[in-house]
Amino acid sequence: MFFHKQELQFTASPAKPDAVYARRMQEVLGGQYGEITVAMQYGFQSWNCHIPGKYRDLLYGIAAEEFGHVEMLAIMIAQLLEKAPVEQSEQAAASDPVLGAVIGGMDVQSAIVAGAGVRPVDSNGNPWQGSYITASGNLLADFTANANAEMQGRLQVARIYNMTDDPGVRELLSFLLARDTMHQNQWIRAAQELRDEGVEDLPVPSNFPLGQEQRDVAYEYINFSDGAAASEGSWASGPTPDGKGEFTYLDGPETSVPMPPPTQPDPRLYGTDAKPNIIDKATGVVKDKLSDK
Amino acid sequence: MFFHKQELQFTASPAKPDAVYARRMQEVLGGQYGEITVAMQYGFQSWNCHIPGKYRDLLYGIAAEEFGHVEMLAIMIAQLLEKAPVEQSEQAAASDPVLGAVIGGMDVQSAIVAGAGVRPVDSNGNPWQGSYITASGNLLADFTANANAEMQGRLQVARIYNMTDDPGVRELLSFLLARDTMHQNQWIRAAQELRDEGVEDLPVPSNFPLGQEQRDVAYEYINFSDGAAASEGSWASGPTPDGKGEFTYLDGPETSVPMPPPTQPDPRLYGTDAKPNIIDKATGVVKDKLSDK
Amino acid sequence: MFFHKQELQFTASPAKPDAVYARRMQEVLGGQYGEITVAMQYGFQSWNCHIPGKYRDLLYGIAAEEFGHVEMLAIMIAQLLEKAPVEQSEQAAASDPVLGAVIGGMDVQSAIVAGAGVRPVDSNGNPWQGSYITASGNLLADFTANANAEMQGRLQVARIYNMTDDPGVRELLSFLLARDTMHQNQWIRAAQELRDEGVEDLPVPSNFPLGQEQRDVAYEYINFSDGAAASEGSWASGPTPDGKGEFTYLDGPETSVPMPPPTQPDPRLYGTDAKPNIIDKATGVVKDKLSDK
Amino acid sequence: MFFHKQELQFTASPAKPDAVYARRMQEVLGGQYGEITVAMQYGFQSWNCHIPGKYRDLLYGIAAEEFGHVEMLAIMIAQLLEKAPVEQSEQAAASDPVLGAVIGGMDVQSAIVAGAGVRPVDSNGNPWQGSYITASGNLLADFTANANAEMQGRLQVARIYNMTDDPGVRELLSFLLARDTMHQNQWIRAAQELRDEGVEDLPVPSNFPLGQEQRDVAYEYINFSDGAAASEGSWASGPTPDGKGEFTYLDGPETSVPMPPPTQPDPRLYGTDAKPNIIDKATGVVKDKLSDK
Amino acid sequence: MFFHKQELQFTASPAKPDAVYARRMQEVLGGQYGEITVAMQYGFQSWNCHIPGKYRDLLYGIAAEEFGHVEMLAIMIAQLLEKAPVEQSEQAAASDPVLGAVIGGMDVQSAIVAGAGVRPVDSNGNPWQGSYITASGNLLADFTANANAEMQGRLQVARIYNMTDDPGVRELLSFLLARDTMHQNQWIRAAQELRDEGVEDLPVPSNFPLGQEQRDVAYEYINFSDGAAASEGSWASGPTPDGKGEFTYLDGPETSVPMPPPTQPDPRLYGTDAKPNIIDKATGVVKDKLSDK
Amino acid sequence: MFFHKQELQFTASPAKPDAVYARRMQEVLGGQYGEITVAMQYGFQSWNCHIPGKYRDLLYGIAAEEFGHVEMLAIMIAQLLEKAPVEQSEQAAASDPVLGAVIGGMDVQSAIVAGAGVRPVDSNGNPWQGSYITASGNLLADFTANANAEMQGRLQVARIYNMTDDPGVRELLSFLLARDTMHQNQWIRAAQELRDEGVEDLPVPSNFPLGQEQRDVAYEYINFSDGAAASEGSWASGPTPDGKGEFTYLDGPETSVPMPPPTQPDPRLYGTDAKPNIIDKATGVVKDKLSDK
Repeated sequence: MFFHKQELQFTASPAKPDAVYARRMQEVLGGQYGEITVAMQYGFQSWNCHIPGKYRDLLYGIAAEEFGHVEMLAIMIAQLLEKAPVEQSEQAAASDPVLGAVIGGMDVQSAIVAGAGVRPVDSNGNPWQGSYITASGNLLADFTANANAEMQGRLQVARIYNMTDDPGVRELLSFLLARDTMHQNQWIRAAQELRDEGVEDLPVPSNFPLGQEQRDVAYEYINFSDGAAASEGSWASGPTPDGKGEFTYLDGPETSVPMPPPTQPDPRLYGTDAKPNIIDKATGVVKDKLSDK
Repeated sequence: MFFHKQELQFTASPAKPDAVYARRMQEVLGGQYGEITVAMQYGFQSWNCHIPGKYRDLLYGIAAEEFGHVEMLAIMIAQLLEKAPVEQSEQAAASDPVLGAVIGGMDVQSAIVAGAGVRPVDSNGNPWQGSYITASGNLLADFTANANAEMQGRLQVARIYNMTDDPGVRELLSFLLARDTMHQNQWIRAAQELRDEGVEDLPVPSNFPLGQEQRDVAYEYINFSDGAAASEGSWASGPTPDGKGEFTYLDGPETSVPMPPPTQPDPRLYGTDAKPNIIDKATGVVKDKLSDK
Repeated sequence: MFFHKQELQFTASPAKPDAVYARRMQEVLGGQYGEITVAMQYGFQSWNCHIPGKYRDLLYGIAAEEFGHVEMLAIMIAQLLEKAPVEQSEQAAASDPVLGAVIGGMDVQSAIVAGAGVRPVDSNGNPWQGSYITASGNLLADFTANANAEMQGRLQVARIYNMTDDPGVRELLSFLLARDTMHQNQWIRAAQELRDEGVEDLPVPSNFPLGQEQRDVAYEYINFSDGAAASEGSWASGPTPDGKGEFTYLDGPETSVPMPPPTQPDPRLYGTDAKPNIIDKATGVVKDKLSDK
Repeated sequence: MFFHKQELQFTASPAKPDAVYARRMQEVLGGQYGEITVAMQYGFQSWNCHIPGKYRDLLYGIAAEEFGHVEMLAIMIAQLLEKAPVEQSEQAAASDPVLGAVIGGMDVQSAIVAGAGVRPVDSNGNPWQGSYITASGNLLADFTANANAEMQGRLQVARIYNMTDDPGVRELLSFLLARDTMHQNQWIRAAQELRDEGVEDLPVPSNFPLGQEQRDVAYEYINFSDGAAASEGSWASGPTPDGKGEFTYLDGPETSVPMPPPTQPDPRLYGTDAKPNIIDKATGVVKDKLSDK
Repeated sequence: MFFHKQELQFTASPAKPDAVYARRMQEVLGGQYGEITVAMQYGFQSWNCHIPGKYRDLLYGIAAEEFGHVEMLAIMIAQLLEKAPVEQSEQAAASDPVLGAVIGGMDVQSAIVAGAGVRPVDSNGNPWQGSYITASGNLLADFTANANAEMQGRLQVARIYNMTDDPGVRELLSFLLARDTMHQNQWIRAAQELRDEGVEDLPVPSNFPLGQEQRDVAYEYINFSDGAAASEGSWASGPTPDGKGEFTYLDGPETSVPMPPPTQPDPRLYGTDAKPNIIDKATGVVKDKLSDK
Repeated sequence: MFFHKQELQFTASPAKPDAVYARRMQEVLGGQYGEITVAMQYGFQSWNCHIPGKYRDLLYGIAAEEFGHVEMLAIMIAQLLEKAPVEQSEQAAASDPVLGAVIGGMDVQSAIVAGAGVRPVDSNGNPWQGSYITASGNLLADFTANANAEMQGRLQVARIYNMTDDPGVRELLSFLLARDTMHQNQWIRAAQELRDEGVEDLPVPSNFPLGQEQRDVAYEYINFSDGAAASEGSWASGPTPDGKGEFTYLDGPETSVPMPPPTQPDPRLYGTDAKPNIIDKATGVVKDKLSDK
C-alpha cells in the first residue's frame, strides 16, 4: 500500500515561470530515464522479487522515494508553465521576438492539452511507456540496469542544470543530483553484495551451466572493424572480470559457415519462390507439393 | 562503411521447423534487449564518441559483429517458420490438437504479413523501436548500459535455451551465450579502464562539480517503506563505491516542505480555478486580470 | 457505406497562411481528443452495437458528421501551411527573427514529409493511434466516454481559439465549438435515456450481480492522503448517484493483509531466488526440485 | 511524498497458479483502463489542480489508493505465473494438449523477459503509455473522464471475473469491483458538485463565451446517415442538459460551402502542382514565382 | 463531407462464428496495410492534392469506397466474435482441447476490452497508427505508395483466404481481392498517366534539378556484398527506366574518405572527451575553452 | 556477416555546425523513409528471400550500402550538433534572438539525452520503429515498396537540400540524391524483370487463382464521390496494366446488401443488448440463454 503526504521532500519552486525550460524538465520526469521510469522500475522489481529480506526491502523503499520525486518534478513543471502564453501564431511571434522564441521552444501540448499543466511525456512530447523499464527477476542484471538508469538520470539532470540560472530550479536539481549520486552508489554496492554473498555471480545468469555454452569463444575479442586500437584495451588480454577466463584478441572471425538454403514455405502464402507455377491457377490446388509437407 | 559476406559466423539451422519456438526467438532478435538493440546501440555510441582510439574502435568492432548476429537469428527464425500452417481457424484447431496449439502459440503476423518470414518485432509482435537504445556520449554511463544489455540478453537466451530440445537451435544459442559472456566481461572491464585511466569516474558524470549538488543527502539511505531489513545492507553504512563518502541510514525523511500553492495560469486556458467568473462571458475579456500577469 | 460530397459543411479557409498555428490545429485533428478520434470512436461503437434502433442510428449519424469535420480541419491546415518556409537553418533563422520563430514553432515534418501538407498527427507530431478510442459494447460506459471526448475536444478548441486572431480560422472554430456543445449535450442525454428506459443503469455494468462484489466497501471513501478536506464533499456522505447506497468516510484503510511470500518460479528461468545452488552447474539439472512442482 | 507499507489493502492470492489467466489480468493492471492508468491520471490531475481544498484532496487520496491497487494486481499476477512452463515448443505442445493450450494462451514475454513476473503491459503485451491518461486542468471534463475510466475498468473486471473459477482471484476481483462502484459514484457526484457550486457548468468549458460560438447549430441533431430512428431520441427534441437550449432535428445538413481551391506551396517542396515546369531544371531557380510569395 | 448509408457494398456475414479467425482478419482491417490505412491514406492525399481535376477526384472517390470496406470488415469481425468464449483460464483450456485452442488463438482484448467486438488493431493487437500512411504531396511517389499498399493488401487477403473454409468469409474476401486487383491496376495506370502527361517523371521528384546531384554515381550498381549474381540483372547494365542513363556495375566502392575527427561539444554536456579535466570541479567553469567556441 | 571499415563512402562534413538543420536531417536518417528504414527493409527482405541468385544478391548488396549511409548521416548530424547551445531557457532566448531561434528549432533531446549526439529518431523525435519496413516474401510487391521508399526518400532529401546553403551538407545530399536515383531505377527495373521472367506478374500475388476472386468487379472504377472528373482518366476505360481486363466506370455502386443484424454475444460480457434482464442479478446465471449458445 502507498500513503500520500501533502508535503514535498525538498523545495520545488522556481524563482519565476519559464515555459521553455519546463519542456526541458519534462525529460527527467517522463523520459526514458526520468523519475517515472525509476519509480516504476523499482516497483516492478520489488513485486517480482523472489527472495524476502534486505534486497526486496531496498526496492520497496527506493520505489516509494522515487514516486515522491515524480511529484516534486510535476509540481515544479506546473509552476514553470504558469505564464505560458496563450497567443501562439506567426503574428504573435512577429510582434515580439522573445514571445516568438517561447512559442518555438515550449511544449505546445502543455498549453492545448493540459492548460499549462505537466504531462507524462518526455521533452519531445513522446508519452512515457512501459517498455522503458527493466524487471527481469535476476537481481544482478537488474541492479546493473538500475545503476545505469541512475547514471543516465544524473547525467541528464546535470545537463539541464546548466540550461538555466533560476536559483529555485537549481536548488531542486542540486537535491536530485545528490540523490542520484546516492542511488548510483547504492546499486553498485548492492550488485557487489549479491556476488559477495554468493547469491549471484558473473556471467549473468550465473546459474546457467557454463558447460552448455560454446566456451572456446567465451573470452575472445573478435574484431569486425578495420581498426587495431581495440587490441590495446584490457578487454583484449588478461584475466576476465568473472574470474573464469583470459581475454584473447582475434583480428576477425576464424570460422564461418555457408548460408543455409533459402526457405520454401507453403506456396499458398504466395511468396516468390523457385517454382512459380506450383499452384494450379484455376483451382488453387498445390500441384507439386514437396513430399515432406 | 559496412561490407556484407554471404556466410554466417556460426551454424544457424534447426533440426526441424517449429513455428511456436520461432515466436520465442523473435524476443532475442527484435525485443528490448535483442540483437537489433545492441547492434544499433553500439553503432550510435561509436558515431557519438568524442575520443578517437581504443574505445571507439571497440564500439565499431562489436557493432559490426552484432549486425551479423541479427542476420544469424533472422536466418534461423525463417527456417523455424518454414512449415508454419496455412489453415488457422477454429475448425482447423479442432481437427488436430497439435495444430491448435501451433495456431495459438505462433506469431500470426509471421504468416499473414511476412509469408512465413522473420520480422523486426519482439515475441509479442511489438515492433522494435529506437527508444530501446542508449547512447548518451558519456562512456562510463554507456558502458554500464551495455553491460546491462548483455546481461539481460544472455538471461533471455538462457531462458529460451530450455524452451526447446532442438539440437540445431541449441547449438546456435550456446554460441550466442558464449559471445554474451564475452561482451558482459568486456564492458565491465572497459568501464573499469575508464576509471583506471582517469577519463571518467563515479559518480557519473564525474566532471560535474560536486560542490553544486546537495552533498548532505548524497550518501543517505532514506527509507520510505516500513521494513527495516534494508538497513542491514552494505549500502546503509560503510564507504561508498565512488570513494568519496560514507553511507548512512535514515528511517524516513528528516525534512520536508509544504506544497507550493496551486498554479493560476491564464484564464483563457479554461482550467478550473478559484475565480470562475474572471472571464466576461459575453466578450471573452479577462475582467480581473492578476496584476503581475 | 460512405459517400463523399466535394463540399464542406462550413467555411474552412484562413484569412492568411500561418504555419505556426497550423501545428496547434493538428491537435484537434489528430490528437488524443481530435476529430479522427471521435469519428473512429463512433464508427467502432456503431459496428459493435448489439441493439438496432435509435442508439445505433445515432452512432452512425454522428460518426459520418465527424469524418466531415476531419476533412474540414485537414483542408484548413493545408491552407495554413501554404507559405511554410523552405529555408530552415540557423542562418535562415538569424537573418530574420520572424522567420526564426516560424522555423521553431511549426511542425518540421509538415514541410519535409508532407510538402506543406496536413498529417494524421497531433501538435507534437505523435501519430494518431487506435488506442485513443473506446468502444466497449456497453453503451452507458461508452456514452460517458463520448461525453468526455466532446468535453476535452471543446476545451482544446476553446484554447486554440484564443491562440489566433485570424477571422477565417475563428469562424471555423466557432462552428466546431457549437457542434461540440451539441454533442456533449447529446451524449449526456443519451446516457440518461439508457437509464430512463432501464436498458442500462449505474453502476456500470449494471447487469453484473451486485451480490458478487464486496458490498461493504462499495460506498466508502477511504483516505490515503493526509488531508481532511475531501471529507467535506458530497462523495463522503449522503446518498450515492446509483441510488443503491450511502457514502461513508474512512480516514485510511481499516483492514490490511500481509504480503504473500515471494514467488518461486522454475529455477531454469534463472531469477534470483533463495536457493541459488538448486541447479547443477555442469548438467543444468534442477537438483532439489520443490516437491509440488 | 509517498510512503509504502509492506501490507496489502485486501487479500491477493490465487488458489493456484494459472499462467493463461495471468495474461487476462494484465489488462486491468497495464491496459488503457487498468490501475496504472487511474493511479497516474489522478496523480497528474492533482498536480495540475488550480484550486486547493476538497477537490485536490480527493485527487491526492484516490491516486494513492490506486497505486496500492497496482501493487495488489502485480502481486496477484506474479503468483498466477509461478508455474509458467519453461518448455515452449511445438514438441512440448504436442506432448500434452493442456500444456499446448497454456503455451498458446499465456503471455510469452512474462517468461522470457520477466522470468515468470508481472509487467507494465496489457493483455496483448502492449506497454502501458502516458497517452492513456487525461489531465486537462478543467475539473468537470476530467471528472467525466474519471467516471468513464472507472466504468470501463469495472466492466473489464466484471468480464474477467467470469473467466475464472479460482476463489482467490474472484475474492480480489470482488473487492476491486466494489471499489470501482465507489469510484464511479464518487466522480459522478463530484462532477455534480462542481455544477452545484457554480465552479463549472455545461457546456465544458463553461467560461468560454457562448457568444463566440455559432449558436444556431449548437443544439441541432444533423443526420448524416440514412436511418430515421435517431429522431426518436430525447437528443432530437426537448430541453438540453446544459439548460441553455432546445434540441432540434435536421435530416442532413442545410448548408454547405464549396471546397477551397487546392493549395500551391513553394515549388521547391516538389509537390505535384499545376505548373510542373516552374522550376528551372538546370539551376533550381523558381522561374515563375507567384507574385505574392 | 461524408454521408453514411446503412447498407453494405457486398455481403459480409460468416457461415458461423470463429473467434480464432476473427483475429487473423483484424490484420486486413487495422494492420499496416489494412483498410483503415488505405482509407486514411487516400483521404490525406486528396486533402493535400495541389491540382484540381481527375487525380484529386480519383482520390476522393476511392477513399470513400475504402471507408466502406473498413465497415464491411468491422461488421464481419464482430459476427465472427459472436461466440467468443467467456471462460479463459488454464482449467477451461484443460477441459476441452478445442476451447483451449480458441483461448490461445483468439485476440484476448476482443473479449475483455470490446465485449466480443472489433477493434482498430492488427492481428497482434498493435493499435493502428498514423505513421502507416503516406501522403507526400508528390503524386508519382504517392501513387507508387498506393500501388504497393494495394499489392501488400491483396497478398494478405489471399493468405487469409486459405486460412478458412467458411463460405461467407470467403465470399467477402473474393470481393475484396477483386477490388484490390482493380486498385492495383488503377494506381499503376494513374502513375503512368502522370508521366504520359508530363506532370511528373522519373526520377521522383522530377522537378529537382539533376545538375545538383552527383550524376557520376546516379546509375552505378555498387556491390557491398561478396556475391556476383547481382551483376546478371538488368539493373547492372543497359538503359535505365528514367530514360536518362545507363546502368553500370562496380564490385565495391571506388572511392572513400577518412572518418572526420570526433566531435567536441560543450564540456558542460558531460560527454567523455579527450580533455576530462577541462571543467573546474569546484566552480563548474570551463577552464580551457576551445578557442573557436 | 557484416564487416566495418573506418572510412566513409563519401565526404560527410558540414562547413559549420547548425543544430537547427541537424534536426531536419534526422528525418532522412531515422524517419519513416530514412536510411535506417531502407537498410533494415532490404536486410529483412534478403533474409526472407525464397530464391537464391541475383535477386537475393541484389538485396544483400544494397542493404549493406544503406547501413553505410546510416553511418554517413549519423556522422554528419553529430558534427552539425557540435555547437548546440547549453543554455536553453526563456532568459537565454530573450538575450539573443538567434539563440532563441536555435533553442526553438533544434531537437531538445539531442542535447539532454545524447549530449549533442545523433539519435535513432525522426525530425519530430519519434523513435524509429520496425513497423516502418515491409518484407512480405513476395518480391514484386516488395520491390514496389522499395521503389516507393526510394522515391519518398529522394523527395525528402530534395526538400532538405533547399533548407540549407551549407556547401558541405549539400555535397553529401547531392551524393545521396544520386544514389536514390540509382535505387529508384534499380527497383523499377528489377520489378519489371520479375515479370519478364515469369517469376511474378500482376495482379500481385499472381499465383492466387483468379477464379477465386469476384471477377465482375475486378476492373470497375466505382465512384463514391460526387465529382465526374475521375471518369476522364485512363483508369476508367481501356486495357488494364495486368493485361487481363478492361477498365469500366460506374457512377456509384450498383448493388448493396442490408446490414446484418446486430451481434448478440454472451451476456456475461455485459454489453448493452436487447435483453437487459437476461442475467439473474443475484446469482449471475444467464436466465434465458439463446438456444444455440
